[in-house]
Amino acid sequence: MTKLTAQAAGTFAIAPTPFHDDGRIDEASIDRLTDFYTDVGCDGVTVLGILGEAPKLDAAEAEQVALRFVKRAKKLQVIVGVSAPGFATMRSLAKKSMDAGAAGVMIAPPPHLRTDDQIISYFKQAQEAIGDDIPWVLQDYPLTLTVVFTPAVIRKIVMDSPSCVMLKHEDWPGLEKISTLRNFQKDGSLRPLSILVGNGGLFLDFEMERGADGAMTGYAFPELLIDVVNLSKAGKRDAAHDLFDAHLPLIRYEQQPGVGLTVRKYVLQKRGIISSSAQRKPGAVITPQARAEVDYLLSRVARVDRRANLQPQSSAAG
Amino acid sequence: MTKLTAQAAGTFAIAPTPFHDDGRIDEASIDRLTDFYTDVGCDGVTVLGILGEAPKLDAAEAEQVALRFVKRAKKLQVIVGVSAPGFATMRSLAKKSMDAGAAGVMIAPPPHLRTDDQIISYFKQAQEAIGDDIPWVLQDYPLTLTVVFTPAVIRKIVMDSPSCVMLKHEDWPGLEKISTLRNFQKDGSLRPLSILVGNGGLFLDFEMERGADGAMTGYAFPELLIDVVNLSKAGKRDAAHDLFDAHLPLIRYEQQPGVGLTVRKYVLQKRGIISSSAQRKPGAVITPQARAEVDYLLSRVARVDRRANLQPQSSAAG
Amino acid sequence: MTKLTAQAAGTFAIAPTPFHDDGRIDEASIDRLTDFYTDVGCDGVTVLGILGEAPKLDAAEAEQVALRFVKRAKKLQVIVGVSAPGFATMRSLAKKSMDAGAAGVMIAPPPHLRTDDQIISYFKQAQEAIGDDIPWVLQDYPLTLTVVFTPAVIRKIVMDSPSCVMLKHEDWPGLEKISTLRNFQKDGSLRPLSILVGNGGLFLDFEMERGADGAMTGYAFPELLIDVVNLSKAGKRDAAHDLFDAHLPLIRYEQQPGVGLTVRKYVLQKRGIISSSAQRKPGAVITPQARAEVDYLLSRVARVDRRANLQPQSSAAG
Amino acid sequence: MTKLTAQAAGTFAIAPTPFHDDGRIDEASIDRLTDFYTDVGCDGVTVLGILGEAPKLDAAEAEQVALRFVKRAKKLQVIVGVSAPGFATMRSLAKKSMDAGAAGVMIAPPPHLRTDDQIISYFKQAQEAIGDDIPWVLQDYPLTLTVVFTPAVIRKIVMDSPSCVMLKHEDWPGLEKISTLRNFQKDGSLRPLSILVGNGGLFLDFEMERGADGAMTGYAFPELLIDVVNLSKAGKRDAAHDLFDAHLPLIRYEQQPGVGLTVRKYVLQKRGIISSSAQRKPGAVITPQARAEVDYLLSRVARVDRRANLQPQSSAAG
Repeated sequence: MTKLTAQAAGTFAIAPTPFHDDGRIDEASIDRLTDFYTDVGCDGVTVLGILGEAPKLDAAEAEQVALRFVKRAKKLQVIVGVSAPGFATMRSLAKKSMDAGAAGVMIAPPPHLRTDDQIISYFKQAQEAIGDDIPWVLQDYPLTLTVVFTPAVIRKIVMDSPSCVMLKHEDWPGLEKISTLRNFQKDGSLRPLSILVGNGGLFLDFEMERGADGAMTGYAFPELLIDVVNLSKAGKRDAAHDLFDAHLPLIRYEQQPGVGLTVRKYVLQKRGIISSSAQRKPGAVITPQARAEVDYLLSRVARVDRRANLQPQSSAAG
Repeated sequence: MTKLTAQAAGTFAIAPTPFHDDGRIDEASIDRLTDFYTDVGCDGVTVLGILGEAPKLDAAEAEQVALRFVKRAKKLQVIVGVSAPGFATMRSLAKKSMDAGAAGVMIAPPPHLRTDDQIISYFKQAQEAIGDDIPWVLQDYPLTLTVVFTPAVIRKIVMDSPSCVMLKHEDWPGLEKISTLRNFQKDGSLRPLSILVGNGGLFLDFEMERGADGAMTGYAFPELLIDVVNLSKAGKRDAAHDLFDAHLPLIRYEQQPGVGLTVRKYVLQKRGIISSSAQRKPGAVITPQARAEVDYLLSRVARVDRRANLQPQSSAAG
Repeated sequence: MTKLTAQAAGTFAIAPTPFHDDGRIDEASIDRLTDFYTDVGCDGVTVLGILGEAPKLDAAEAEQVALRFVKRAKKLQVIVGVSAPGFATMRSLAKKSMDAGAAGVMIAPPPHLRTDDQIISYFKQAQEAIGDDIPWVLQDYPLTLTVVFTPAVIRKIVMDSPSCVMLKHEDWPGLEKISTLRNFQKDGSLRPLSILVGNGGLFLDFEMERGADGAMTGYAFPELLIDVVNLSKAGKRDAAHDLFDAHLPLIRYEQQPGVGLTVRKYVLQKRGIISSSAQRKPGAVITPQARAEVDYLLSRVARVDRRANLQPQSSAAG
Repeated sequence: MTKLTAQAAGTFAIAPTPFHDDGRIDEASIDRLTDFYTDVGCDGVTVLGILGEAPKLDAAEAEQVALRFVKRAKKLQVIVGVSAPGFATMRSLAKKSMDAGAAGVMIAPPPHLRTDDQIISYFKQAQEAIGDDIPWVLQDYPLTLTVVFTPAVIRKIVMDSPSCVMLKHEDWPGLEKISTLRNFQKDGSLRPLSILVGNGGLFLDFEMERGADGAMTGYAFPELLIDVVNLSKAGKRDAAHDLFDAHLPLIRYEQQPGVGLTVRKYVLQKRGIISSSAQRKPGAVITPQARAEVDYLLSRVARVDRRANLQPQSSAAG
């Protein structure tokens, strides 16, 4: 697999980790997920992210999941989330993943970081821990991680670490941050950096217009992300928004903290891609009311985008 | 003005506090805002909330703003946000507002509360501070206030305080919370309680279906909130969602933390209701790019809902 | 009263706000407190700090308390805590206090500040709000305020604002911070700045040796703070530590968050300085067990420092 | 090794994890530490706690450290900290430690827990994860862990889980909490529970008097903890305080967050027990000034307690 570079663009799906109902890792579903992402046209897949229930896996399991994705992915670049409470664990998973063929790793800040210096220093040490030769993605996600990066801090981290090639951008609000970073590049103070956006895609329409290179998020219809990214890059603004807006009610529903993953797994199961929507404990369960709401949203999306038609199909459906 | 009761329902607009460009309170705009909310059919208006930049006002100014809204509102019930670091300030503003004719007050928890007991005890003391005769609204807004209420804690607070007549619900995710509270009422453990929903209206469509009595939020088109509330109550589900979905891209854009208020004030100014979109310091400023994005969103909403057509109009526009 | 300068040194007592048992402000006790601080040799007194239950006062009461202290203090410099959720309230109290003769004001950061830029920008705006002519004290107290200042951020704030003349230092741990700031002055990057230390005096012994100019804290025996500051300045290291260590068990007991104020008010009441140990609601109450523990500690301190002998005295006591 | 029970009492040292200067685990120092704790009379040792830099170890290393301590300890009960972001990791380390002969495990709450229900539910699931047969210690340490337990929540957790046999108490302030829990036992609502106190021992004197069964903390002179526990149990109040107070200046110095571990490792190295005072990255380093301060404090403690005399000794030292 080729290594991740600052030229990376397009759509990287954030993969959930599929479990059996009893909490065991479901490897067959990992394979189906990987094939699905490949078939719809994703450029990459990010595994063991926050969405991927990574902290619930022990070290051996994390390695097992990462390697299963890497082995199965032929055309996709795989990014492995290696965030960990300590550098020993981070390094260990990073090395094993890269040895197996991963394209890069992703690192989120631990929640206790507060000052600019603490943040900068943490990522300097993290990069030393994994070594200079592993391309890595900086995850900027204040809502969940409680660490706030200014654009200048991101610039400093990137300029300090040549192997930092990508920003996973999910600050909220975040549109001005993309513009500021792109302006840093225009004024020559920031080197090339891929910016893929998260937040469930909730602002993907405008984030692309502000200069994002693509999406990296877990919306259960990566096809939509791909289309919006492509339409936006092709300058078809209205078309991009039209399609995006058709999905927005569901995107919004999925982006609820905590509940979101139950929705994603429910939809992916409904699509026949993963066998069970179970989360490993401690995890949330989708309620019957929520399920009915998602079904209703799917039916509404399907009026515009037939890929969202997941109803049990009669003979001549399609 | 009649006092707020647990039967309150419909749409209460959260009013921004209008300032002149130099930071002085703009009383003429308060009057226009009040008239606007009345004319479009709001049931009430909530002033000096978080959106209302209340902490930036000194005590005399807070009283001035509250009383100006109360005096101007003839048909609207006015709820005054009285959250304060201490009970002396809270009581003082509550008394003065009620004396002037407010319908009730709203109280948010201070951010240091953590345990169930701390939360319950705080609201018991707050109610003692303002006195038994002032109807009050409990604000549940963890994202901004960092205090997490379980449904059981809300029930306890409400059952302890007969004058607590309404929940401003803006937990996130929050759909199951509404269902749980309504189930408490079915099983007889919770007395009648009005539930109005906030969060910029981002989940208003489903919140109504879960049992909310209406909306209390600051979306710059309260007309949309009113319509969705009414359609939903009339059982016109698809129509409610159709209209809601047309506005959702803008609702979502407005709901960005920090930035949201700049958008709301920009739109309200564009609608001719407030004179200036200025926030008092420290405040955010809408960038030219954001302004253009909002204009684009307005033009898209206007394709479905002509009330969003805020373009300078030629002679025969409409 | 002379205005506060960067040459300020010695001991500034942090005054509690005395209340009657029913929560009303006790002005006679304010006078006695002021006289007491003067008589024992304090250089100043800081009122309406965190210890002073300032947020529990409404605006008029805050002004009343501040002015009462200012009027009574003849030889003491009075610093008024003006921290507030908004600049309007801060400015209002600052102006009134200075007009009445206060020496300066103290400003703490609001808890939501995170990045270096946010912190620096806040204090820039705060200084603009109160005006250039009011000397002010920067309060650095992460444990309670949750805002973390690096030494470089403090330097930036001080260099940006000529009227910032003092740091109330109560970071924890904080010894290296004092050394770093003093080194900034040696290398010419930081102008003169008074550093008074808080944290209940728990590290006063070494803080003086690291370069503090004195103490600003609420320990119920300001005499001890004065003595340790003076002995340390006179280079009598062992004597300073001997006296400090005798008080340390009580200093430590007083420094418990939340409980500390109950102890301080209890001791000050026992010393005959304030009439009631009551806190305004919501407040803690000293338990009988805690009272007995404090009495025991006082009796132990009194073996070395007879000023701590607060027992009801028989005829020939002393 | 016998399993931990609710009758556990005395002094359990919290062991640092010894590293070589280059960050590798120092097994010889683990052995010396274990022997030292045994020789001075500790009843147990707790490894891989927060002080033990546990998050910096990967899974294999954590197991290595735990097992090394367990193998070496003949007379000591070993408690292994198994707190982890997920239950799979927690279970894995717990099983391996118990199989090797550990007496029990210790579990701290993850920082995102807020409501009473969340806390109670977490520990219920944690106990299910490790199984019913492993005695476990509940760690209550709000200052660092940011999770606040009321006494009633602790009672609920303990009553729900028969295998929870001990509370590591380090709330701050915490004296009333001990009294409340002991009162729960008097009124029959709480079953027997060992309470060992932490917080560096800063309140050990009074905590024993409030009903603690002993100490579990990392002060570099466990001899002092043992003596104070024993004197207190023997009812020798003044003697307990006299000895405690002699150490308090150093106890206080060691209890500084972040810096404390540098001091402990420095003293333990100076005592010849561990080879290096190095922390694994990211870690703090003791400055020359801090080292001199600790040396000064040691010399002062040594005037009362000769065990603190760590100076290079001439022939006739003493």
